[in-house]
Amino acid sequence: MEWIRELLEENVALADEEWQAFSNLLEEESFSAKSEIVAEGQIARKIYFIDEGLLRTYHIQKGKEINTYFATDKQVISTFASIITQSPSFEYLEVIEDSTVYSLQYSGLMSLYQQYSSFEQFGRILAEKNYLCILDRTILMQTKTAKEKYTDFIKTYNKKIIQRVPQHHIASFLGIAPESLSRIRKEIVS
Amino acid sequence: MEWIRELLEENVALADEEWQAFSNLLEEESFSAKSEIVAEGQIARKIYFIDEGLLRTYHIQKGKEINTYFATDKQVISTFASIITQSPSFEYLEVIEDSTVYSLQYSGLMSLYQQYSSFEQFGRILAEKNYLCILDRTILMQTKTAKEKYTDFIKTYNKKIIQRVPQHHIASFLGIAPESLSRIRKEIVS
Repeated sequence: MEWIRELLEENVALADEEWQAFSNLLEEESFSAKSEIVAEGQIARKIYFIDEGLLRTYHIQKGKEINTYFATDKQVISTFASIITQSPSFEYLEVIEDSTVYSLQYSGLMSLYQQYSSFEQFGRILAEKNYLCILDRTILMQTKTAKEKYTDFIKTYNKKIIQRVPQHHIASFLGIAPESLSRIRKEIVS
Repeated sequence: MEWIRELLEENVALADEEWQAFSNLLEEESFSAKSEIVAEGQIARKIYFIDEGLLRTYHIQKGKEINTYFATDKQVISTFASIITQSPSFEYLEVIEDSTVYSLQYSGLMSLYQQYSSFEQFGRILAEKNYLCILDRTILMQTKTAKEKYTDFIKTYNKKIIQRVPQHHIASFLGIAPESLSRIRKEIVS
């Protein structure tokens, strides 16, 4: 799980003792494809560091699934709003491909926040990044054409996600019809 | 400026020494109505604690102003994305009514983050609240009717903002036409 330390250290410097305290709280878990880790209405308790696999968050809007985030190997995912407020989630966290993860209880992270200012700093940077991520997404959805959305997506998203996430999920993430996405992909290839 | 300490202490407990360090960094400034404090393309440097007045943030989309936030007496405002990334702002910060504020340089806040873990915690909670605020707004914009948006707005927003922000700014904030807003307000009154 050394990659998790590297991921944290992209944001904050950690002493060995701090990493030890953090890694002691991680629990290895495996989920098969289609597992629902968090459902709408549940209070989310954990953050997931994905060792191998593919997950998504989505919510239901007017009867349709709207994807909001994908994460794959060596990335992090959670239903962040429910985690930080400890109130019922408006969104789902679902496994797309069989996945092995290291999970961290948010209560454990909160106690690390109190013990070590490095983790408090990590929490701040994580919250700031989540803020920027949702802001980017909101502006993208409001201002770009379907083709611009897709070209932006393939430029900025992790290659594994582009290759492994089913096309209908990408269409729902970008807020465009599956047929439009398929037409756009043909245009780009030709 | 004691109200600023109270505002901070809604989120974190502060020792006298910490409050002293913070308040030493505050600078009193006055702006007249229509002043543009941050323009698109500028890098924002300061956070504003409004002693008295009314400000808004907005961005230009397809030639139209889209309001994204209002703040009044004893509230905080900034162009947060530009502040935390220290990159050019996509949005404007403008004064609606003559305002007196206490401004705080972000560089000063960053140095407080490093010196005191209470401020790091404050930064985390601030970023989390901003995340939840934009998430709520995004979901509101996607799922509610014009009438629901307005009734939500008058339920959740500060009374002073509802009374003092010009109607056309509220319409732009809610993403509805000014004529629709005027019709909805008549319906609600009758």
